[in-house]
Amino acid sequence: MMAYRRVALIGLGLIASSISHAIRRAGLPVTVTGHARTGATREEARRLGLGEIHDTAAGAVRGADLVILCVPVGAMAGVMEEIAPALEPGATVSDVGSVKGSVIAAIRPLLPEGVHFVPGHPLAGTEHSGPAAGFAALFDNRWCVLTPPADTDPRAVAALEAFWQALGANVEVMDAEHHDLVLAVTSHVPHLIAYTMVGVADDLSRVTESEVIKYSAAGFRDFTRIAASDPTMWRDVFLNNKEATLDILGRFTEELFALQRAIRLGDGEHLRAYFTRTRAIRRGIIDAGQDTAAPDFGRAAQPAPAG
Amino acid sequence: MMAYRRVALIGLGLIASSISHAIRRAGLPVTVTGHARTGATREEARRLGLGEIHDTAAGAVRGADLVILCVPVGAMAGVMEEIAPALEPGATVSDVGSVKGSVIAAIRPLLPEGVHFVPGHPLAGTEHSGPAAGFAALFDNRWCVLTPPADTDPRAVAALEAFWQALGANVEVMDAEHHDLVLAVTSHVPHLIAYTMVGVADDLSRVTESEVIKYSAAGFRDFTRIAASDPTMWRDVFLNNKEATLDILGRFTEELFALQRAIRLGDGEHLRAYFTRTRAIRRGIIDAGQDTAAPDFGRAAQPAPAG
Repeated sequence: MMAYRRVALIGLGLIASSISHAIRRAGLPVTVTGHARTGATREEARRLGLGEIHDTAAGAVRGADLVILCVPVGAMAGVMEEIAPALEPGATVSDVGSVKGSVIAAIRPLLPEGVHFVPGHPLAGTEHSGPAAGFAALFDNRWCVLTPPADTDPRAVAALEAFWQALGANVEVMDAEHHDLVLAVTSHVPHLIAYTMVGVADDLSRVTESEVIKYSAAGFRDFTRIAASDPTMWRDVFLNNKEATLDILGRFTEELFALQRAIRLGDGEHLRAYFTRTRAIRRGIIDAGQDTAAPDFGRAAQPAPAG
Repeated sequence: MMAYRRVALIGLGLIASSISHAIRRAGLPVTVTGHARTGATREEARRLGLGEIHDTAAGAVRGADLVILCVPVGAMAGVMEEIAPALEPGATVSDVGSVKGSVIAAIRPLLPEGVHFVPGHPLAGTEHSGPAAGFAALFDNRWCVLTPPADTDPRAVAALEAFWQALGANVEVMDAEHHDLVLAVTSHVPHLIAYTMVGVADDLSRVTESEVIKYSAAGFRDFTRIAASDPTMWRDVFLNNKEATLDILGRFTEELFALQRAIRLGDGEHLRAYFTRTRAIRRGIIDAGQDTAAPDFGRAAQPAPAG
């Protein structure tokens, strides 16, 4: 039994669009409403049939029993101020931000009496953004992490959990601070590093007349894919998960300097041992079901011909 | 007209196996011979039907008019010593090493009179290794860079170029030193960084009981894929492309520190401008035909349902 009959999506990018597609795919008896800041995005969302699109955020949330904030982390507080007066008592507010501690700090003070707040973060996405980038299968078998503050009504948490499961996701509940540390290492710092490497290559490519782009071998292609993600979203992630990002970055540079030193000194055993250990970690990720063993370094493997 | 009738592959990993499959796919009138150091690999290569597998490297190259060294960069000199007495006058020796300067320095002094030497590097691979990992389409539309020393017979270069084109690759000729710099930025340093990040995550995962692996979101999955590549091959790459790797690593840490500082100071404009620039570079890589725009952050995009 779905607890919600009317779901409002504020912000209509890749995630909100995919939520709308996934609701329809699941056949949930739910009316989807939505709002985006810019008129062009609202027009596109209407054209894509993502739901009942309103010109104001307050209009979209009126009567909704679930409101999901799908805007960049830095825009959450502003949106919350706008919708607070229109929220129904008993409704649940959630979000999809990649950082949870700062979002909770920004939103809780603005929450009207009698409205539940269950922060969430679906660990899913592509490097594309905008309503046209969404698709129904985005959350299938991905984790959606909920980080409800300790005093949250357990029934509100359970209802949101059932909603995400209906969309194809696996749900896990954890502490917001812990979420932010785990995400710093699995997502935020890797993105920052990819951005940096692509920037370095760009500086060099000016010298070598685009050869860097022409010969973008495997490693670099994967980096550019990561570094193509939405700039505003990632700016907000780093500004709002500053502490954990700087902590993990510190560990990263420490380890990088140790490898750099091994290269300089010609310490092959150190390098090989390190690389052997990381190969084993990859195996762990495949076993955890978060990826497959199939190679896709820019090209799918073909079955070898018989004989 | 293929210039070669007998092609010897020394070392029978992913690349050699893919060369053998691609020769067969192209229907080249060529006998493939091969040798691997370990008996188990030779057995597997026989089982896979990769060619006429010999128990010694000298046996495999006897009578061959093209010999391709497909061993890790650090093993090239040892193999060359072994095969030098068995090489035919007029034959061409090539290789597939990811570093060219040090391979040339190691091999040239060992080259018998009358044998051509055309170093090569196909920019293709997956994170898998061993003869079973090979497939015929690996080189399709990928670059193969040849770095012949200035005094090389142009006919030997042209013949090898035609060979790689028959295997599906695009061929480019450049200076070895330049190759090593371009590869440092497009491949070697990105790999080192991916290895480092995976190592950092591993240290942390011991504390958080494998959560890092469980929640491996997009960015980190791509890193582990890269970091799963063959440890011995990569050790040799870094030891043999030391100068360019350390040069690019220096630029990388400089830029990373600038971004780290922007995060610490809360300079959102710096971050957004940087991320916007890298997004444009990604577009350049798609335009250069080295990748597609399709999102594959661990999952393929589904077409949105109509309406």
